Amino acid sequence: MSKRKPIRTDIAWSTHSTITIKGFDLCNDILGTVSLGDIAFLELTDRLPAKRESVVFNAIAVTLVEHGLTPSAIATRMTYAGAPEAMQAAVAAGLCGLGNVFVGSMETAARMLQEAIPDPTKSIDLEPLARQIVEGFHGRKQTVPGIGHHLHKPVDPRAPRLFQIAAESGYDGPYVKLMKAVAKEAEAVYGRSLPVNATGAIGAIASELKLPWQIVRGIGVMARAIGLVGHIREEMREPMALEIKARAEEEATAHLRSEKS
Amino acid sequence: MSKRKPIRTDIAWSTHSTITIKGFDLCNDILGTVSLGDIAFLELTDRLPAKRESVVFNAIAVTLVEHGLTPSAIATRMTYAGAPEAMQAAVAAGLCGLGNVFVGSMETAARMLQEAIPDPTKSIDLEPLARQIVEGFHGRKQTVPGIGHHLHKPVDPRAPRLFQIAAESGYDGPYVKLMKAVAKEAEAVYGRSLPVNATGAIGAIASELKLPWQIVRGIGVMARAIGLVGHIREEMREPMALEIKARAEEEATAHLRSEKS
Amino acid sequence: MSKRKPIRTDIAWSTHSTITIKGFDLCNDILGTVSLGDIAFLELTDRLPAKRESVVFNAIAVTLVEHGLTPSAIATRMTYAGAPEAMQAAVAAGLCGLGNVFVGSMETAARMLQEAIPDPTKSIDLEPLARQIVEGFHGRKQTVPGIGHHLHKPVDPRAPRLFQIAAESGYDGPYVKLMKAVAKEAEAVYGRSLPVNATGAIGAIASELKLPWQIVRGIGVMARAIGLVGHIREEMREPMALEIKARAEEEATAHLRSEKS
Amino acid sequence: MSKRKPIRTDIAWSTHSTITIKGFDLCNDILGTVSLGDIAFLELTDRLPAKRESVVFNAIAVTLVEHGLTPSAIATRMTYAGAPEAMQAAVAAGLCGLGNVFVGSMETAARMLQEAIPDPTKSIDLEPLARQIVEGFHGRKQTVPGIGHHLHKPVDPRAPRLFQIAAESGYDGPYVKLMKAVAKEAEAVYGRSLPVNATGAIGAIASELKLPWQIVRGIGVMARAIGLVGHIREEMREPMALEIKARAEEEATAHLRSEKS
Repeated sequence: MSKRKPIRTDIAWSTHSTITIKGFDLCNDILGTVSLGDIAFLELTDRLPAKRESVVFNAIAVTLVEHGLTPSAIATRMTYAGAPEAMQAAVAAGLCGLGNVFVGSMETAARMLQEAIPDPTKSIDLEPLARQIVEGFHGRKQTVPGIGHHLHKPVDPRAPRLFQIAAESGYDGPYVKLMKAVAKEAEAVYGRSLPVNATGAIGAIASELKLPWQIVRGIGVMARAIGLVGHIREEMREPMALEIKARAEEEATAHLRSEKS
Repeated sequence: MSKRKPIRTDIAWSTHSTITIKGFDLCNDILGTVSLGDIAFLELTDRLPAKRESVVFNAIAVTLVEHGLTPSAIATRMTYAGAPEAMQAAVAAGLCGLGNVFVGSMETAARMLQEAIPDPTKSIDLEPLARQIVEGFHGRKQTVPGIGHHLHKPVDPRAPRLFQIAAESGYDGPYVKLMKAVAKEAEAVYGRSLPVNATGAIGAIASELKLPWQIVRGIGVMARAIGLVGHIREEMREPMALEIKARAEEEATAHLRSEKS
Repeated sequence: MSKRKPIRTDIAWSTHSTITIKGFDLCNDILGTVSLGDIAFLELTDRLPAKRESVVFNAIAVTLVEHGLTPSAIATRMTYAGAPEAMQAAVAAGLCGLGNVFVGSMETAARMLQEAIPDPTKSIDLEPLARQIVEGFHGRKQTVPGIGHHLHKPVDPRAPRLFQIAAESGYDGPYVKLMKAVAKEAEAVYGRSLPVNATGAIGAIASELKLPWQIVRGIGVMARAIGLVGHIREEMREPMALEIKARAEEEATAHLRSEKS
Repeated sequence: MSKRKPIRTDIAWSTHSTITIKGFDLCNDILGTVSLGDIAFLELTDRLPAKRESVVFNAIAVTLVEHGLTPSAIATRMTYAGAPEAMQAAVAAGLCGLGNVFVGSMETAARMLQEAIPDPTKSIDLEPLARQIVEGFHGRKQTVPGIGHHLHKPVDPRAPRLFQIAAESGYDGPYVKLMKAVAKEAEAVYGRSLPVNATGAIGAIASELKLPWQIVRGIGVMARAIGLVGHIREEMREPMALEIKARAEEEATAHLRSEKS
């Protein structure tokens, strides 16, 4: 037999009469007083948020719940149409698409900021740092994360609103400032309007909340699960999946069926 | 070409400068004031909750976030170990297991209650109704949903706490009363202690909140997505998946390897 | 500590120099001689198929690989568009929709047949049995599984072809005969053309191959995974997911955006 | 309305009386004569394989079907334990973990080879090319893909067997030779035994078959879906998921429960 490493979790445990989550008694300390958003913060940090943290964290999570008829929402609806007996799998199918293209950008923005400022308590000269970051992405021909938006022009309205909420709670520190400086620098380098977008604001504010970049995508995943349940509810009452499928199939195979006849 | 049905969503839409979710302006009406739990209520009902609804809805959702090292949590951790580049897929894998065995029971409980009381505003004689329900399940040799618990004995502590929170907000109506009456009747029929458990309490309270039983499982799905992100965070720092796998594989194939040699 | 049950697998095991799958040495007994379809048969039955079993099993599995632009294929493409870094999750998203609506019917057909004929070696009077089955579904207002098709009219061409292949290999036993008798009886009861469809033929032939109905859906799941990889390959070269999404979103939110302005 | 791009698929289409897959009539050209593995080849290449291609392609696909009690298999079993009504979602959960850690290495190996030899018809000096490749990975402190194995030492028995099958069919061209040269070079640079492993052999042989590296992971995904159905079948008859879970939970929370009392 090979050597065994111990396994250990510190998240939750139960006895006959109690359930404990990260040291809090579920029935006495949590239920009735702690909200869903604050439990999400607990899952990500091992502690309940202070009031000002709660406001800011809930704001960034709420931003990510619902983006309308996204590819993820359509995947969820298609799956529900085929397997209505397993709603959980329809949400799962939608979550599978929250990858590098759509939700990953807030992870990349948080990583960019946290790698640039490993210690946010130290004094930092932001402008040269922003320049160096933008030049790095530009030189590697990579997209600078967290800036610009294909639809919300000239400004993604969520970014200034999130920054305002963060500032009111005292979270307008170095990561937020660096994110804004990166956008300004990028506009100079690329010669067009590239303001901070929602994922940039979220990446910066999550960094202010001391959430490591590795887990930042998780905020999007948990939030979108909520929105996808909403899409299933609408699909139950006003289905569109099979109609979308019928139209796509008809158009996409028209050239084949015409050859046939 | 076949006839086309129109497709339509009323969940969310965007313009260059605004995002609207169910009639609310995201930036002005929601961000900074509406919590994650209340947005979840909006997704399930098309309106923001009143204060007392918010307290009760958040309590039932929070109950479902974290159940420790469940089969779902292990599936998420196993998936993360193989595909750390796609955290979203690890959460999805965990959600896929929230089916009839674990989370489905709150849907079944809500269905039992809502089918028994189609109009909760009418006066109902609960005891005979409860008797009829229990006899129905007993006669079909099906488990009565929402009662009893393999670990939490004699009482699942979440149920009385959730009922207390609901009662304080005025949600101790016919569904809650019927759920309790069903448990009492079942104890008589089966001759053992079968108090209402957490899924029974949640099924009853969700019914009081007028959530149709068809969507009740969704509360569990959205809540657990939050908890599964917490398990990924722990797996990042204190991995257990590959150790669990190594032990299981060693034991499960020992008889094969011994034949071999 | 609670009592421990032993865990055990008999599927596969490895040593430093060998890999064994269900008693077969992978390198010496399988690779180079056993095809993918025959390994699938091994996974489902614990033995390699005889030649005539192989022909029939491959035929039913092949039938299930590719059904064109299905809801599953669209879910896979939507997921790939968002997370191209995790192709495996895109296939997973598509598989999640292979539920009761589309693929489940072959499970239901196999179950109907196997429950009607628990012992296929006994002599059975098929006509009254078929009548009883159809009357049962009709009385419960359930759809009789395995018959009729919304597109392939008057005949689903796959069914007679699969029955022909099965008959040529000697698999035209009681399950196939009962399936045909059920279709005939249903046509009498419902008063319209309801020939056996592909899922009915597959359910019957899988029963002839002694595959228990509980695993029959698995043939569809494994086969479709192959087809979904094909859809990802096409989506890589000729993407349609984001175009389908753009059109759906535009139409589905038009009424909201017009109110707005 | 924005401009619309046409959408188009060339995979499959149907009429009332026919189903066509990539130009082949399903009933007349495929069923009864084409095996599951050969249809998989058709999905990946748009043509049916020649006999020698079929032997080699089936061998690499078969190699990937079953690896025993992997993290993926455990995720599938955990999911099935919670949602037995949705077997498809249990397979999906297992597939989600076929990411960069386990199955991704054959994609990386194929990419390494195809980027090094963009045109395999040209004469190439393999030794300096192998040296350059190994030095590149070594310099970037990345693992060289396709060589070494934690269990199969000194030799992964699948690699020489797969190379033998490929050679017998004439597929021992430049990609196979380069893969072997890379292993030899790596052994010199790292100073230990690092023979080609199964994923290296598969990456090389897939390249010989002209499969682009971007789709190579898909061979693993389709093959493993087959194996995961086999694990569900065993879990149905000899369940282990809940036992694995019970043990893991007991050990992992022991320190918490002891503090409690």
